[in-house]
Amino acid sequence: MTTAAEQPMSTTAPPLTVALAKGALLDDSVARFAAAGLDFSAILDPANRQLMVPSACGTARALLVRNADVPVYVAYGQAQLGVVGFDVLQEHQLPVAQLVDLGFGGCRMSVAVKATSPYRRAADLPAHCRIASKFTRCAERFFASLDLPVEVIHLAGSVELGPITGMSEAIVDLVASGRTLRDNGLIAIEDLFHSTARLVGHPLALRLDDGRLQGIVERIRAISRVHSSVPEAA
Amino acid sequence: MTTAAEQPMSTTAPPLTVALAKGALLDDSVARFAAAGLDFSAILDPANRQLMVPSACGTARALLVRNADVPVYVAYGQAQLGVVGFDVLQEHQLPVAQLVDLGFGGCRMSVAVKATSPYRRAADLPAHCRIASKFTRCAERFFASLDLPVEVIHLAGSVELGPITGMSEAIVDLVASGRTLRDNGLIAIEDLFHSTARLVGHPLALRLDDGRLQGIVERIRAISRVHSSVPEAA
Repeated sequence: MTTAAEQPMSTTAPPLTVALAKGALLDDSVARFAAAGLDFSAILDPANRQLMVPSACGTARALLVRNADVPVYVAYGQAQLGVVGFDVLQEHQLPVAQLVDLGFGGCRMSVAVKATSPYRRAADLPAHCRIASKFTRCAERFFASLDLPVEVIHLAGSVELGPITGMSEAIVDLVASGRTLRDNGLIAIEDLFHSTARLVGHPLALRLDDGRLQGIVERIRAISRVHSSVPEAA
Repeated sequence: MTTAAEQPMSTTAPPLTVALAKGALLDDSVARFAAAGLDFSAILDPANRQLMVPSACGTARALLVRNADVPVYVAYGQAQLGVVGFDVLQEHQLPVAQLVDLGFGGCRMSVAVKATSPYRRAADLPAHCRIASKFTRCAERFFASLDLPVEVIHLAGSVELGPITGMSEAIVDLVASGRTLRDNGLIAIEDLFHSTARLVGHPLALRLDDGRLQGIVERIRAISRVHSSVPEAA
């Protein structure tokens, strides 16, 4: 196994680096870059254990990182481009430029309660109730916008256990198919926002760009207009 | 599939609830509770998809949650007992009582740098350098204790990419076998602390206990004295 540290790097200028999120967005992210001329399909090989994978042409590389880490690598300039969900951008508010709404990875950030509870809108929830969420900043901003004081409890996973155990009245979480909610006797009662995957960039890299970044961004934007049925929200 | 919401509950008083961390600590946690008379082995069945699993005797239940969520469920009293790594307790500082050092799950919270870097102690690192970590509070406290101002960057995973990409001079991360560090050309240069799994409890539940909790804690403490070679640190 070649480890990340031993991986050959471009011998000329630092190569173009793209931060891609592991998980649900990865296949579509690789396909979109492939259509724009950068082939990172080696990253999809189940045998791949590298976190830093060169493109087939050798002029770029992909960093394979956690969802929440994509805007970190882009904000610090270690990656010039990245693909990440709008939900992560809303939660972490890092200084990256949102370039293209890629249209895939659609889901909603929703308030959900027990199906047996009397609450049918977020504003119905009692003041000072508890809300469990992985997205505590999104939850805090949303309830502040309702002028409803709540206690937001951070959970790292399985947020649906909050209402089931009685720890929280509600949750704020991503809902895609809604199956996890149904399986756990919960229902979504209000959406904070709709989320899709976004192409993001390092602002300074874009400003100092010799045209290469802009070319990739334009090709991905053109392809995404064809693919996407969601209106672009920058 | 029986979902968590449909799961039968005790019809009398709320059952004793134990929060167990998914992952590396789970097998040993289940074994320790089994030796103390509570059989949660159903949780280890690979076919199990429930997050709330009753004990074989029916008088208790286990919540299967993420590491970082164990002290949350215990602090809020949804679980009276829990098993979690000392590292998580140090990072999140929630109001739970540390009851027993269980001895297993041993690892170190360490500062690591590129093997090729000139730094051999944390105090050698340059002021205002960047440190990547999942454990940002531990890292911040440690460098504050050295009077060394640093910028701590939160990463959710694959922290070793910090130095590899050049984003950070060093990382603060858990080191067990050291293989991940070696595979990525990094070396640990200083330890913040040693971590093992801990039995934790809800302080009020322990104070209001009719003897049942105390009995379980005493049995686990007795077993853990036999198993553990690590001195107990409360």
